[in-house]
Amino acid sequence: MAPKYKLHYFDVTALGEPIRFLLSYGNLDWEDIRYDDAKWAESKSKMPFGQMPVLDIDGKIYAQSTAISRYLAKQVGLSGKDDLENLQIDQAVDLFHDFRQKIGGWFYDPIPESKAAKEKDLKDQVTFYLKKFEQIVKDNNGFLVNGKLTWADVYFVAPLKYFKFIYGSDFTEGYPALQELVKKVEATPAIASYIAKRPAGDR
Amino acid sequence: MAPKYKLHYFDVTALGEPIRFLLSYGNLDWEDIRYDDAKWAESKSKMPFGQMPVLDIDGKIYAQSTAISRYLAKQVGLSGKDDLENLQIDQAVDLFHDFRQKIGGWFYDPIPESKAAKEKDLKDQVTFYLKKFEQIVKDNNGFLVNGKLTWADVYFVAPLKYFKFIYGSDFTEGYPALQELVKKVEATPAIASYIAKRPAGDR
Repeated sequence: MAPKYKLHYFDVTALGEPIRFLLSYGNLDWEDIRYDDAKWAESKSKMPFGQMPVLDIDGKIYAQSTAISRYLAKQVGLSGKDDLENLQIDQAVDLFHDFRQKIGGWFYDPIPESKAAKEKDLKDQVTFYLKKFEQIVKDNNGFLVNGKLTWADVYFVAPLKYFKFIYGSDFTEGYPALQELVKKVEATPAIASYIAKRPAGDR
Repeated sequence: MAPKYKLHYFDVTALGEPIRFLLSYGNLDWEDIRYDDAKWAESKSKMPFGQMPVLDIDGKIYAQSTAISRYLAKQVGLSGKDDLENLQIDQAVDLFHDFRQKIGGWFYDPIPESKAAKEKDLKDQVTFYLKKFEQIVKDNNGFLVNGKLTWADVYFVAPLKYFKFIYGSDFTEGYPALQELVKKVEATPAIASYIAKRPAGDR
């Protein structure tokens, strides 16, 4: 029997959105359970590592957004064709991880002195990563790996709405290959139909 | 023909050590290229993302320590037996990632106000993660996943020397299941023989 999935996450895109895109892409049987602050306060201690996203697969729960995304990618046919292609996918995914940590590390820094210091370098660092990604997509015929859609593209595109929101502007402007990639992923029919009906929050 | 590997990394354990353990475990044909500050200063701009470790596989270079470790694990038989086991491995690996970022994020924080604030919570956070890992190992018969050696164990044990050094003490004391795990991984013959001949730095 086809497995039943339940995604537990906040009512934002961010780390839950690659999982939602992948579940949608594969037309899997899934439930999108969204938490507000009150619901999270009473549920936090029940989550394996006190964090979300958490994916329930037939009653068993798993944490860690990247691990979950890689697993689902395999189920829906968006993994690499061999080990070396998976290495390239993982390399792009880990680079995106570094990139989003620069933005999140600045945005969520609770110490004003430290946040101000990070803010000075933020634009340069964002530019550093965007240039790398732009070049990777140019070198790979419009995708992050080998000229075809893989879960690296989904992992990159899905949470952008959130990171653009906290950064305060659309940082992909001036990076035409990345903008094309965003359009392509979001226009994938099953993903487009999920986006059309997802809650219309600002992040 | 069997591939030739060259690992480029600093002369410390840290993010390079899981890769060295895996290359050793598989008795692969590899060269351990270690950088001092001067060599790194002249090489940094040649690395794909300006970082190390970087692994050269038959003349092609790859970055990102976790991506490289997962790839090598597959080559040497330390991946999971199926997708769900790989999800459990990746979950443990990503949890270790969160753990080491708490320690590294404190140690490398350049802003005194911010570093002091992190230091106040550091012990609690380290305890939080160690308790989780201790419980995972107890629940999995002495390993991180399903009672057998996988690359999650190698990924956890290999860089501990470094993180204990920067933390300033052996934080595994009081966690008997973790201490047993460290011993088991380090006693694996091919890994033990690598450790016996590795440069005897303090980290």
